Parts: sequence; C-alpha cells; structure tokens
Amino acid sequence: MLAAVVDQGKVKLQDKEVPRPSPGEALIQVSLAGVCGTDLEILAGYSHFTGTPGHEFVGQVIQAPDRPELVGRRVVADINCGCGQCTWCFSGDHRHCRQRKVLGIRGLSGAFAQYLCLPVTNLYPVPDHVPDKEAVFAEPLAAALEVSQQVHITAKTRMAVLGDGKMGLLCAQALSRFTPRLTLFGRHASKLIIAARQGLATCLLLPDQPLAAENQGQDVVVECTGRPEGINTALELVRPEGRVVIKTTSHQSSTLDLSRVVVNEICLLGSRCGDMGLAVHFLAHKWVDVQSLIEDVYPLSQIQEALEQAGQTGTLKVLIDCEKIRRTHA
Amino acid sequence: MLAAVVDQGKVKLQDKEVPRPSPGEALIQVSLAGVCGTDLEILAGYSHFTGTPGHEFVGQVIQAPDRPELVGRRVVADINCGCGQCTWCFSGDHRHCRQRKVLGIRGLSGAFAQYLCLPVTNLYPVPDHVPDKEAVFAEPLAAALEVSQQVHITAKTRMAVLGDGKMGLLCAQALSRFTPRLTLFGRHASKLIIAARQGLATCLLLPDQPLAAENQGQDVVVECTGRPEGINTALELVRPEGRVVIKTTSHQSSTLDLSRVVVNEICLLGSRCGDMGLAVHFLAHKWVDVQSLIEDVYPLSQIQEALEQAGQTGTLKVLIDCEKIRRTHA
Repeated sequence: MLAAVVDQGKVKLQDKEVPRPSPGEALIQVSLAGVCGTDLEILAGYSHFTGTPGHEFVGQVIQAPDRPELVGRRVVADINCGCGQCTWCFSGDHRHCRQRKVLGIRGLSGAFAQYLCLPVTNLYPVPDHVPDKEAVFAEPLAAALEVSQQVHITAKTRMAVLGDGKMGLLCAQALSRFTPRLTLFGRHASKLIIAARQGLATCLLLPDQPLAAENQGQDVVVECTGRPEGINTALELVRPEGRVVIKTTSHQSSTLDLSRVVVNEICLLGSRCGDMGLAVHFLAHKWVDVQSLIEDVYPLSQIQEALEQAGQTGTLKVLIDCEKIRRTHA
Repeated sequence: MLAAVVDQGKVKLQDKEVPRPSPGEALIQVSLAGVCGTDLEILAGYSHFTGTPGHEFVGQVIQAPDRPELVGRRVVADINCGCGQCTWCFSGDHRHCRQRKVLGIRGLSGAFAQYLCLPVTNLYPVPDHVPDKEAVFAEPLAAALEVSQQVHITAKTRMAVLGDGKMGLLCAQALSRFTPRLTLFGRHASKLIIAARQGLATCLLLPDQPLAAENQGQDVVVECTGRPEGINTALELVRPEGRVVIKTTSHQSSTLDLSRVVVNEICLLGSRCGDMGLAVHFLAHKWVDVQSLIEDVYPLSQIQEALEQAGQTGTLKVLIDCEKIRRTHA
C-alpha cells in the first residue's frame, strides 16, 4: 500500500505492506483524511514522531475478526489507544493513559495511508446520510466540543473564540450551539465571513490596534490561534475570574505574564481530544456546516503538495483522498 | 509622621503629614507591618507603584467618625478598596473591581508608615489573645487560604506546595488543614525543616535531578516559588487533568510549554488575595504557627535594611515595627 512517512522534517511516500490487525483490532481502508495543524507541528518536530502521520479520517472496515458485524461499515475513530490496565483506562478516560498510543502522533501508524489498524473499541460507525467529506471532520469536531464538556456554559455565558483558522471556525460553529453570546475574533476578513454567513457574530482584530473595551470581559475565551503568542491576546479578552481554554498545540514555548493570571485569578485550561460519539451526533444532525471549511482535496500521491498548501497562512481544511492515487481534477 | 516612599526603585524615609480619614474611613496607627515578595517586586518595577508600599499590617484604630466603636480596637484589613458602584463591588467581590485601589500596591498609601487610612468596611478586629506578631500574618494567610476557596479539596486530594519560602511554608501549613495528603517541595533543607517540625511531609528538590516518579501525579500543585520558571516544575508535578494554582507574582514573564498544558488538559489557576475573616478565624484558633516564619523585626527607621534583608534568598518574614523609630535590640 501507499503510505506517507515522516523522516527528518519531511514527508515521503513509501510502498509498505498492508498492516495486519492484532487481536481486538480492525483493518480499515482509509477513504478521506484531514490535515490538522498538529500534523504540521509534527513535521516541525513536535512529539518527535516518526512514521505515518494523520489522525483525522473516515474509512471502511475491511477486517474485524472480533466484531465481524463491522466489516463494510464506514467508521471514524477515537485516536487514543490506552494500555487498558491503568487507573485512567479503568476510569474510561484512556486519553490520559501514560502508555497510550495516539494514531499518527505517538507510536501508531496514521491515516495518510491506504490502510490502518485500530482497536475495534475505538471505532464509531458513521450514519449513511453523512458523506465522507463531513465524517472526516469528526475528530476535530470532537476536539472543539471537548470545550463544552470541560466548561459549564449557559445561555448567559459570554464566549470569545480567538483565531479564525479551521479550528477557530469549527469551535465557533460547534460552541454557538451552547450559548447565543459567542463571538469569533480573528485577523482575516475572508475567514470571518465564513462564520458570518452561518449567522455567527464576528470581530476583526487589526494588528497594532488595542482591543475595544466592549470586547473585553469575556467569561470564556477559546484560544485557537495556533500561535504561541495567542495566549496573550486571550488574556486581554477574558474577564477577571474568567476562563481561557487553550486548543493551540505548538512545539514553540509561549511567553506570558503570569502575574496577570494571578491578579485577575484567571483559569487557563488545556483542551485536547473530545468525545467522538458526540461529534458523530452533531454531524448526523447537521448542527455544524463542516463542508464550508474545506479548502481543497488532494490524492494521497500528492501528500507533499497537500501539506505545503495546508501550511500556508489562512488555508482551511486540506483533505487527502486516500483511495485516489492521481489527481484527476483541478 | 515617618513614612517609607518608593522612588525610582529605591525606598526612602520621609516626614509626611498624618493622613486625614475621608468619610467612611478610619485612621489607623500601624503597629507591625510585614514585608512581602510583592513589595520587593514593586521596588523592581511591578505595578508601577509610587508612594508608600506595605500591605500586611496590624494596627490600632485612632479615628473612625462613622464607626466610633472601632476606636481603640486592634485591626487587620482587606487591602482591596473597590469603587462601590460596579457589578464586581455589588456582587461582594471588590477584589476584581477595575477601579480598585490596593493598599501599598495601587493608588493607596501603604503600611510602611506610622499611620494609614482605610475604609472602615475593610477592617477586621483582632481578638485580644492574638498577639501583633501573629495578627500581622492575616493578609498573607488569607492569600494562602484563598486556594482552599478556589479548588475543591477533599481528604483524598494529593496536594503539593512548591516553594519553601514564606508563602510556601504558610500555604503548606494552612492547606494541610484541608487534606492529609499534602507535601511541601523545596530546595532548602533549612526551610523544609520548619514545616517538618509542624508534622508536614516535605521533599527536598535537588537541582539538575529529575523528579522522582512517586512525586509526580499530584492532583493539585500550589506554585509559590516566587520565580517565573517555577511554573515548569509545577507542570512536572501535576497529574493529567490536575490543577496548578499560581501564587507567584513576578514582574518577569514566564516561558512555558503550553502544549503540555493542552495535551494533559491541565488547569492553571491564578490566585490572589483571600478572605480576611477566615484568616482571623485561623489565627484565633492557632491552626497555623505563624511565629515560626518570622526572620527578624526592624524599626521603621531602618526600612532600607529591612527590605535588603527580605530580598536575600531564603529569608523568611521580615517585620517592620512602625511604633519604634530606632532599633533597641540586636
């Protein structure tokens, strides 16, 4: 099979053997995969990952010896595989298992390939009426919805989503289901308009201009800028005793004024992967319009070009068609 | 009256007029004041404060036109004075009023003086059996106890206090009332022994040595190092989904790996001033042994020497006797 492999900061295509599922695993043929900021961070050195990256995908189950009823089903997957033995795994939250493997990020061959293997317990069948181009968003949508499971949001909660990239746009859409008082803040009018078309309030941030007083005092700020310095803008937006939820994972360190955090008693909360079941539920009911976030689709054979485009500022979701070897359309 | 004044990073003694209480205020003769890390940060440029510093004190009410029954009473005080008009003040939490003045820190002449004025509503009478040398700790003790009001602590909570300076020692003592599973981590055997004598578990951190695995996985870490890099050790101690409560206020920025916060879904929580009523309650019941934390007592006239000593690494609480002009003992 064809698979992308990270090697010293570059991605190469290799012809590899189709993996064989271990006991409890399924073999999945990848249909579509999505490029995430984390994939680009991995290329830049984050998590020291080598192997096949890619963790957002939808595919079809080809083999599942332990759960044959899954064969032929379209599925998305929880990307965290716990050891099954520790207190985290026993508590049902294998996302924090110390020995975990994470698809395409840590110790587990990822989705930029024609096939991959995952435990059957990680798989979530996709309803027939949800097309691949929507189902492939399940993983980032779950990450966006994780905020709603960490923070108590009510209809009175004044929430800012900071950053108008693909994660910011997705968070704004998903979290606007929980409070009518949400505004998306970003630096790109061309991106904010995508949210505005969906009826969301938006605010264009101009470089070197101070934040307007009426935008400050947010109860919750969701930091999705993807830049290590984004946290400082978040700290300007949030009210005393408010919360800043951090979605950005950068391999660069952030420099921040913690005395501001102390004096205003702000809560900074890290937020990672979420509940795939909730994401599929959202997609099934079309509570988010994820197709508006697609920038382009590349065949797997053009993974380098795909990652290059994904790495350009302002690019929305780049998808990889893993069933297609050559590009047949412009 | 004699008063210390901060001027361009130095402190000078000046002869100033005794202040006159405005309506609603009391005139207080300061008995003892305490030197806090924040005072030293103010000298280093934090909060751009000019005027008389000092915010930890015990004193005697001399005039209180609106509450004459307070005259003659020994008092400690909440150092935050809100505007009384905003939503924060109406909600009872004037600590976060945007227009607030803060004794010796922001817009309000402080306690390194013979007299000061404060609103009578900020004053807390001290029970007769609590000596001045204990009452003067009410403000930092309230700050230590603030952690117990921000975080849900149970007897199962595994808590680390990081930093064996005066705030760390005070937090460890105060918070050990809420969980038996508390350990004080620090770099100075000579300081840890003060806590050990009070029956607290301690752990000596050696520079350049990695943290032992059994010390990691703390549910709550209270960061009291006073150093901008302390946050990174705190992040090594805390478990996934755990909390790091930040007490350090430094005028220097901190550099940290926020991807660790995100991946482990850690909560960083700023923590400032606390409830003076609770602190007086603790002092009245002798639930903390604050006298063990006193390094030395200087007369007000020797404020420069006092601040110099307080600024040396490893110095415990330096007190200023504001009734005494000259030093009469070694």
